[in-house]
Amino acid sequence: MAVYLDYNATTPLAPQVIDAITGSMRDHWANPSSNYTVGKESKAAIEKARGQVAKLIGGASENIVFTSGGTESNNIVFNCILREGEVPHVITSTIEHDSVIKPLNHLKDNGSIELTCVKPVNGYISVSDVMNSVKSNTRLISIMLANNETGAIQPVKEIGEVIRLYNINNNKIGQERILIHTDAAQALGKISVDVQELKVDYLTIVGHKFYGPRIGGLYIKGLTSNETPYKHFFAGGGQERGYRPGTENTPMIVGLGTAAQLVSDRLIHHMSHLRSICEYLRKRLKEKFDDGVHFNSSDSDCLPNTCNFSLTASHLLQGPVILRHLKSSQISLGAACHSHDTFKASFVLLESGVSEDIALNALRVSVGRETTRADIDIFINDLSQAVNDIIIK
Amino acid sequence: MAVYLDYNATTPLAPQVIDAITGSMRDHWANPSSNYTVGKESKAAIEKARGQVAKLIGGASENIVFTSGGTESNNIVFNCILREGEVPHVITSTIEHDSVIKPLNHLKDNGSIELTCVKPVNGYISVSDVMNSVKSNTRLISIMLANNETGAIQPVKEIGEVIRLYNINNNKIGQERILIHTDAAQALGKISVDVQELKVDYLTIVGHKFYGPRIGGLYIKGLTSNETPYKHFFAGGGQERGYRPGTENTPMIVGLGTAAQLVSDRLIHHMSHLRSICEYLRKRLKEKFDDGVHFNSSDSDCLPNTCNFSLTASHLLQGPVILRHLKSSQISLGAACHSHDTFKASFVLLESGVSEDIALNALRVSVGRETTRADIDIFINDLSQAVNDIIIK
Ligand SMILES: Cc1ncc(COP(=O)(O)O)c(C=O)c1O
Ligand SMILES: Cc1ncc(COP(=O)(O)O)c(C=O)c1O
Repeated sequence: MAVYLDYNATTPLAPQVIDAITGSMRDHWANPSSNYTVGKESKAAIEKARGQVAKLIGGASENIVFTSGGTESNNIVFNCILREGEVPHVITSTIEHDSVIKPLNHLKDNGSIELTCVKPVNGYISVSDVMNSVKSNTRLISIMLANNETGAIQPVKEIGEVIRLYNINNNKIGQERILIHTDAAQALGKISVDVQELKVDYLTIVGHKFYGPRIGGLYIKGLTSNETPYKHFFAGGGQERGYRPGTENTPMIVGLGTAAQLVSDRLIHHMSHLRSICEYLRKRLKEKFDDGVHFNSSDSDCLPNTCNFSLTASHLLQGPVILRHLKSSQISLGAACHSHDTFKASFVLLESGVSEDIALNALRVSVGRETTRADIDIFINDLSQAVNDIIIK
Repeated sequence: MAVYLDYNATTPLAPQVIDAITGSMRDHWANPSSNYTVGKESKAAIEKARGQVAKLIGGASENIVFTSGGTESNNIVFNCILREGEVPHVITSTIEHDSVIKPLNHLKDNGSIELTCVKPVNGYISVSDVMNSVKSNTRLISIMLANNETGAIQPVKEIGEVIRLYNINNNKIGQERILIHTDAAQALGKISVDVQELKVDYLTIVGHKFYGPRIGGLYIKGLTSNETPYKHFFAGGGQERGYRPGTENTPMIVGLGTAAQLVSDRLIHHMSHLRSICEYLRKRLKEKFDDGVHFNSSDSDCLPNTCNFSLTASHLLQGPVILRHLKSSQISLGAACHSHDTFKASFVLLESGVSEDIALNALRVSVGRETTRADIDIFINDLSQAVNDIIIK
């Protein structure tokens, strides 16, 4: 029996989400732009889902745009700040997801933006490092809410507060405000997320990380009042109130709404479950490997479901070698979208201050709503067996 | 009982497609980039679907990229031909869908391309008008395969053949070939479509027009050998073999494959059904309204399911007025994505040579696999009642 412990790569769809999507495929197939009854029903289903997604992040419905996924949402944000004849400065971190770092590097390379990548200290971005990077042409700060590999929860809220004060001053001297984006892909469904508290202008939503479908959303503060710039890549029909052309994927949107509602209803419960399973995992790892386990995830300011660790007893215990020897556990080395590259130590871990030796041995375990202590026991046995096999051979 | 006669706006999902998507949500939720078994199964499901979609259009699997829909596919094509320091010339028609005409106009307005919009003659683009527009910097011709409002099937194949010969010559004198794109959104599932026969370089695929889900695909000739330029808007992970970043929407992709397979299996049958229902509709309209009906769709070189007509007995019989008086028939005036604009005569009809008077009275009926003669009878009764109500009032 396989044990799935890679919930940061993706989650299964909640049964209620599958049912909602299946029902919606039957009931809401009409074109939401059509003026007759069934068209209006599809539109109403989308608006209900928009409300559910808005509630998940403490934002207003009208500020949510549905997208095809997190990658699209992140890319849109950077497209929004481009302007003819200007080279805006963007601050990000060195541990962002590819869908943030790659478009930003691309824009830097073609001269559209200036870019500063702040390096974390022990896995965490420092607010003062961010503030020290601010220049007169700084237009956007993009810092992820929680890292996908280590689970480290970044001080987006603190940056939001400092920038709010900075912007008040900027405003007095007639300067445009600095915008803040956070990629909340890994945070939603695992910790509480509130755009008012975070004081962000853009927030990326990714369904398949919280038991929803493979679409996403983008929160844009004051979208309808043009308070925050917004510009999609595509041109076409007037769907999504003109904010994203293309006939809406109603069933998936309904599924995203349902997944959001499930989180709103049960987050506290899920968090304590995830935390208790993760604590049990750490305990078992320590019991089993003693000094031979090194945790690359902190046990505070960390996603309750994520444990990144390295077995340090031998240089033979490199991540990919262990993965090949595991018989029943599905875990990963880091981001799934890197899993077909030739093996290198994770840049996230190296940037987070983990030494190369240790980073080469890293494994990421991320647990989910379904994970039980029995699953962890299976994993621990599987892992010790793998270690024995590798070291004895 | 409502009668749905707006299959060009969207189709229901085939029951087999709903089942495939529902099954896939249960079975293929793992991340297709993950290296363990369930990840590989998701990847295999995607590759199977790619084969099914490729077969639908007579192309090779490797040349298909899955997208979030037709709008994305069309927009990508125009992004592909942009190059630093060049202003390529693009030829399109004046009756394209918004997702073609709007991005092209946008690129023209910002100086990235030169644009020629060829006007149809009686609803059809003339091959010689296209060829007469070719200039030394012409890089792309984008002509839809079938029009969404009139159903007119455009001579893409003939353009493909002439351009093939032109390109052979171009090649001799060291010039780059002219690329051809066709938006096949309305053609797939209604007529046979074959990229070899059409000799196109890009072809846009839209699931929800052929009983599939709300995602799409793009065919790119010689994609993997870089024979045809390709460039996505988004940057991010290496998904879709590097051609479209973002975790793949496996269940929807599986649904698209299933919908494609159903068309491959049953197209001849569907075509003859659609044609016979549409002929019955024309016959009943003529019987009922005699000289008072004007057909804006030709009965040859036209999609078998589409009938655009105007009731010309009175200027009171404008499209929106009739729609308001229909009790049980769900039809439309034209493209669904325009249905919330203030009423103007359809630009497609005006460009197709329909006089403004007649265009103002136009209605688009588009039938589907489920449509029966009894449905047409209900519609005819509903329509005559509406006409009576309007003219008598
Ligand atoms: C932090 C982070 N951001 C963005 C994404 C991108 O999401 P997607 O691949 O679904 O577009 C992911 C998931 O892979 C992620 O972990
Ligand atoms: C001719 C044509 N092209 C493209 C599209 C765009 O498809 P979508 O809105 O699903 O992106 C449509 C459908 O609305 C269409 O009729």
